[in-house]
Amino acid sequence: MTVLAADSRAQEPVSTRRGRVLTGFRPTGDLHVGHWAGNVGNAVRLQDEGYDCYYFVADWHMLTTHYDRTAELPALVEGIVLDLLACGIDPARSVLYLQSDLPEVAEMALLLGMITPLGWLERVPTYKERLRDMAERDVANFGLLGYPLLQTVDISIVRGELVPVGEDQVSHLEISREIVRRFNRLFGEVLVEPQPLLSDFPLVPGSDGRKMSKSLDNAIGIRDGEDAIRAKVKSFITDPLKVHRGDPGRPEICPIFHLQALFSPDRLQWIDEHCRSGELGCVQNKTNLADRLIEELRPIRERRIDLAKEPGLVSNVLEKGRELARPVARETLAAVRDAMGFSRP
Amino acid sequence: MTVLAADSRAQEPVSTRRGRVLTGFRPTGDLHVGHWAGNVGNAVRLQDEGYDCYYFVADWHMLTTHYDRTAELPALVEGIVLDLLACGIDPARSVLYLQSDLPEVAEMALLLGMITPLGWLERVPTYKERLRDMAERDVANFGLLGYPLLQTVDISIVRGELVPVGEDQVSHLEISREIVRRFNRLFGEVLVEPQPLLSDFPLVPGSDGRKMSKSLDNAIGIRDGEDAIRAKVKSFITDPLKVHRGDPGRPEICPIFHLQALFSPDRLQWIDEHCRSGELGCVQNKTNLADRLIEELRPIRERRIDLAKEPGLVSNVLEKGRELARPVARETLAAVRDAMGFSRP
Repeated sequence: MTVLAADSRAQEPVSTRRGRVLTGFRPTGDLHVGHWAGNVGNAVRLQDEGYDCYYFVADWHMLTTHYDRTAELPALVEGIVLDLLACGIDPARSVLYLQSDLPEVAEMALLLGMITPLGWLERVPTYKERLRDMAERDVANFGLLGYPLLQTVDISIVRGELVPVGEDQVSHLEISREIVRRFNRLFGEVLVEPQPLLSDFPLVPGSDGRKMSKSLDNAIGIRDGEDAIRAKVKSFITDPLKVHRGDPGRPEICPIFHLQALFSPDRLQWIDEHCRSGELGCVQNKTNLADRLIEELRPIRERRIDLAKEPGLVSNVLEKGRELARPVARETLAAVRDAMGFSRP
Repeated sequence: MTVLAADSRAQEPVSTRRGRVLTGFRPTGDLHVGHWAGNVGNAVRLQDEGYDCYYFVADWHMLTTHYDRTAELPALVEGIVLDLLACGIDPARSVLYLQSDLPEVAEMALLLGMITPLGWLERVPTYKERLRDMAERDVANFGLLGYPLLQTVDISIVRGELVPVGEDQVSHLEISREIVRRFNRLFGEVLVEPQPLLSDFPLVPGSDGRKMSKSLDNAIGIRDGEDAIRAKVKSFITDPLKVHRGDPGRPEICPIFHLQALFSPDRLQWIDEHCRSGELGCVQNKTNLADRLIEELRPIRERRIDLAKEPGLVSNVLEKGRELARPVARETLAAVRDAMGFSRP
């Protein structure tokens, strides 16, 4: 993959472009199989289908829950950019940039905050969830409450039209649509109201059966090598009633089976039948899954190792992204300022 | 007054400078006698005493309560700058700038918001007061809650050391000091902790006896001419028990007397005695006050008329202020970003 190829989008006539898609990635740790099967894989697919993709690394968003981990920030940003490139995000076709490289986002967030009712923010379910999940940490800050507002600006400032969301997340976008509508009602039709782009984000279980998550320490990383993958797959829970080979299993409650649905769809029916009949034991089943994961992740891992060797690669990619995204952000902010009366006497 | 004189501060050795003072002025309407006797007069005094003064027009702050009046914003900014110049703020000695001319303020507010506990903001008494006073309007927005945070950034970004406050407002500065201390504890000693500069801000009554305020329609404007001043002074309430000349009066409850304490201190004892004895009637007393106010306000009013005739004056003054303030803001933001890990990999 030549990640710094000439910009093919510039040659492409505007009329053939599909809508502008916006997605952010929090640099809170290494990507894992859950991301890869979820928003990252989806982002690659949309890029390959010819959407006008704006993808950003949400370093400011990371502060809302990890302001005490900023010393790791440069390495986390470097890591996620390499992960995204290795997974197939191609800076020649997608605009890949760093959120904090657009200071216009901060100014627009300040302006839109003046018309964003506190009640709207306080009602966002993920806000309450975060407060609850992180009760032991000190995160009830102004920035956390403002998370959906900042997201709204991330979308609007680059005139994002489509935001990929799972069916259960459509409501998350609603507050952004409401803020945009309120702005346009007060100050004129300046901002684009984003629409959800319904996407299939499967629930990927981790080794303990809960949602795969780095913080739960139950994840298979996309950088994991053969030995790590085998060891991690071995540690997965399975149907507790299937103890020996020969015992009938219940695939629907088995995390291994759910991963196979994603990574071995061609063999799924066979697995289902032979698990239920007892002919397929868990050890063999796990070995099969590990083989498949190793096969699928090998090219990503190898590509990532190669990319990490190119000096200045991440910096160049982000610089190119900034050059593409910033003029758009500047133009939107100028329109917002103008609509709100912020031009000098 | 030559408002665009060469910058005398540049020639002044740093060691002879007094501390850096920071004050903001909301452009919500014309200045009145209450401002003039209060924060504006004080700002002029501090400038004349040789402090290193940073004064700004708080146009973003205006949005927290007047986001529905932005169409008037350019005229309001123009108006308050002329008012401040007419009152004696001298851009050759003070840095006079527009808040929204420093986009660095917005970015630093976003960053500091990540470590500002919601509880600190919710407890600020002026926040609750504003919510109550404006219950009929729709102001319970994210930006209003963030007001003290934005103020903190206004101060810190230009490394303000001293903030003029009345004795009853010392606590208003406390949240800024707390936010700065929290930042420095988390990320290193980057920000200057501002100190209150105790100032005498007299409570100036309006015609109805309540605090003089444009929104209560009880104010004498600094641009008012002779006829308007006479009519407004006549409309002031006085001691309701003193109906006729000859009736004994109680100066301590009379708004006219409180204004005389500010503008006719030389005659105050005589007024007190002759009001109490009944010899001084309210009509005469008001005429005396109006005469004095007309005399004091005339030079300001005339200067303002002259200043308003200079084409491009306000724009030039603000441009000069921006040129002086922005490098300071840039430097502070760079230090903040650096301390928080926001440098590119």
